[in-house]
Amino acid sequence: MTPDDTKVNAAETITGLEGRVLAARDIGGILFFDVLAQNRRVKLLCRRDETAAEAFARIRATKRNDYCRFAVRECAGELHIVDQSETLERTEGGTWPEERLQALRAYSLLLDRLRLRLGEHGFAEVRLPAIHPGAHKKEAFLTNFFGKSARLTTSNALYLNVYTAQLGRAYSLQRCFRAEPSKTNRHLAEFDMLEVAAVNETITSVMAALEGLIKDVVGDFARSEFASAMAIDAKAVTAAPFPVIDYRELAARYCFGGKGLGQREREIAERGPLFVVHFPRSLGSWMAKPVDGEHTLSFNLLLPGVGEAAEGNEKQTDMALLRQKLKRANIESQLGWYLRMMPYTNFSLSGFGLGVERLFMWLFGCTNIRQIHLFYRDMTFSETHPHDDGAVTTDITGITSINGITTCMEMNDDISEKHYSGNRLAQKHGCRDERKKD
Amino acid sequence: MTPDDTKVNAAETITGLEGRVLAARDIGGILFFDVLAQNRRVKLLCRRDETAAEAFARIRATKRNDYCRFAVRECAGELHIVDQSETLERTEGGTWPEERLQALRAYSLLLDRLRLRLGEHGFAEVRLPAIHPGAHKKEAFLTNFFGKSARLTTSNALYLNVYTAQLGRAYSLQRCFRAEPSKTNRHLAEFDMLEVAAVNETITSVMAALEGLIKDVVGDFARSEFASAMAIDAKAVTAAPFPVIDYRELAARYCFGGKGLGQREREIAERGPLFVVHFPRSLGSWMAKPVDGEHTLSFNLLLPGVGEAAEGNEKQTDMALLRQKLKRANIESQLGWYLRMMPYTNFSLSGFGLGVERLFMWLFGCTNIRQIHLFYRDMTFSETHPHDDGAVTTDITGITSINGITTCMEMNDDISEKHYSGNRLAQKHGCRDERKKD
Repeated sequence: MTPDDTKVNAAETITGLEGRVLAARDIGGILFFDVLAQNRRVKLLCRRDETAAEAFARIRATKRNDYCRFAVRECAGELHIVDQSETLERTEGGTWPEERLQALRAYSLLLDRLRLRLGEHGFAEVRLPAIHPGAHKKEAFLTNFFGKSARLTTSNALYLNVYTAQLGRAYSLQRCFRAEPSKTNRHLAEFDMLEVAAVNETITSVMAALEGLIKDVVGDFARSEFASAMAIDAKAVTAAPFPVIDYRELAARYCFGGKGLGQREREIAERGPLFVVHFPRSLGSWMAKPVDGEHTLSFNLLLPGVGEAAEGNEKQTDMALLRQKLKRANIESQLGWYLRMMPYTNFSLSGFGLGVERLFMWLFGCTNIRQIHLFYRDMTFSETHPHDDGAVTTDITGITSINGITTCMEMNDDISEKHYSGNRLAQKHGCRDERKKD
Repeated sequence: MTPDDTKVNAAETITGLEGRVLAARDIGGILFFDVLAQNRRVKLLCRRDETAAEAFARIRATKRNDYCRFAVRECAGELHIVDQSETLERTEGGTWPEERLQALRAYSLLLDRLRLRLGEHGFAEVRLPAIHPGAHKKEAFLTNFFGKSARLTTSNALYLNVYTAQLGRAYSLQRCFRAEPSKTNRHLAEFDMLEVAAVNETITSVMAALEGLIKDVVGDFARSEFASAMAIDAKAVTAAPFPVIDYRELAARYCFGGKGLGQREREIAERGPLFVVHFPRSLGSWMAKPVDGEHTLSFNLLLPGVGEAAEGNEKQTDMALLRQKLKRANIESQLGWYLRMMPYTNFSLSGFGLGVERLFMWLFGCTNIRQIHLFYRDMTFSETHPHDDGAVTTDITGITSINGITTCMEMNDDISEKHYSGNRLAQKHGCRDERKKD
């Protein structure tokens, strides 16, 4: 095909394509570009021998991070730039590196896959309220609700249970809130919680369901454009069943004495995801069924480098027993609605809550949960950081540049060096190492 | 096939199926059941001539709303019940009618379809914070954020814009909050807002994108199991373009004088969905670009029987101009981050916010937005209604039974009779008619 042929055909097939230049390479006669257009990375090239000289010069001047509108023609499976118009005026710095965008797109895919896989297994998505009535001093974020006392949800499990008893299987993927003054690399004051519940499931079968969900998602990512950024060995994760360890065994080994796994979490799960089951009553949900006088039908899913990513249990559904419990705790007026709304009694109901950001951390080796959303909430507002005082850098790549340094100073991280594989998606970009050396 | 043959085959192919009986019919020799299993309606039958007498008697005793475990065998495309074990003990009343469950499943599908269609068009889902810094008296829900003044989001548009400028196309589907003391049938204090934004889109192209999205979703539902429950003529909606009316034309016709469409909204959109464009500056977002000295590049999408379901605009992206604006309003310290985080200047950026519950109302002819989620928030908490005082009926079907009557008394609805087509999904079940007769 001669250049002249090309020009004749071009008239019919030229289309516009707009986006940000993620990479630009010039090998003389051919220019190569990677462009982020409509949320996808598109490869374009421009050949000197088929482009008008003036246009070629203009296209050659295009730099990384320019936002351009290209006239593009398909040619034997490749996209050739014919012309380029309108390069947006860029503020000083301001654009994010490709890895940062890739992390955002990967998080979007993670949400999508979790929902898709749950849908395939007959779970309906329900929407649950963020504002809950009543408030205790210890609980998350007091809110004035039309003059009434309210708080932001720390878990929607009770609401989800009511829906689940009617629908059989239901889930919610919504924001949850924790007013814990935690300054670790794994806590946010506002995070995405996937809550799942099912009727006629036991703790064992719901653990299997969670394991299946995690493995499905790992498999999905291993087949996705994000495979090379994954920090885990997808084959190894999906090949073997997750080990199950009894809390009592760990308690004996580590001398917990009824306490949480705490700083041991990541040590325990060093080699791969695993379940810890049968937590003491004092640690588990008040709803969990007892397994003996002291322990409950509860579990945690631990992930390497992250620790606890999910917790779940088999719920008490003896309504008479629950009624007594609420009465003793003097919260019948606050939670009595729950018992009145449950249609069955003595049925098996199990579920779990999964922290989506923590799952993401493990999948992509993030060392800091703040690297996922640009606008995160820890004890501060990420976009109006108190240390900010107007001196924000203009190269805004999330935590690394807006307030990376101040946040790093605040870190109170107990993770030892060896648990880190490095965040392959978002951490390449100058974030100070916030790890404490042991 | 003789009964004996059947019994021989059965051994290999019997599977368990659990769920709630939605319908039971007995025609003597054959029993028919509709069962809600894994969030799907499944048809089962039981033939006397192929079932043991004792089992048949047990199965025959099964009633609507029983929760059972069936042993089921596939037989020429039908599912035959072989045996039944474990009927859960049901509390008095307590189960919802099928239409109520169907509405929940339809809402789940609506969320799914909106996300799917946006994904197909290259939009990435991002997650935006519910807690925003700063608070004005008028704004939604003051919240104590670790001792700092904060409020719950009424819109995440600014946050979304920052992501969009980097990704090109982005959306968020999250809970939004309005502390308006509204007692109409269309307002909730907590609702699902779909916020969508795109670079290089004008008000015209983003309106086309919204129209396309609505039509795609209408088409999806027309092909779904929920088609018969739809209150609209899907073919008519998708066949013709949505009309576009200029606000100035309506202002002249109705003598608005710079005010909102208010009670005229549903009159204006009586015949079908339509856009109203170019609202006065006083009504639109402060971010909207001007179209003349008085009006802005803004729009509302109105839906029959519902009124405003979405609003959008083409945003001001002249950063110098926005900086001046923030300075004049003395909110530079609160919103200055927005300007610092925008990577380009003078680029075209448009978007909209769509109320998902309102879209649902139109699709299924809901007359009250409280019928969608069981746990809704108006000025009260639906599960702990102040008029409740423990005398809640046990037949809990959402608004209709928990607190239908009190809510109906609170209604301040300005909608005339003719706008109602009746909620085909959720309203059949004894809810008092909350419409005011004109």
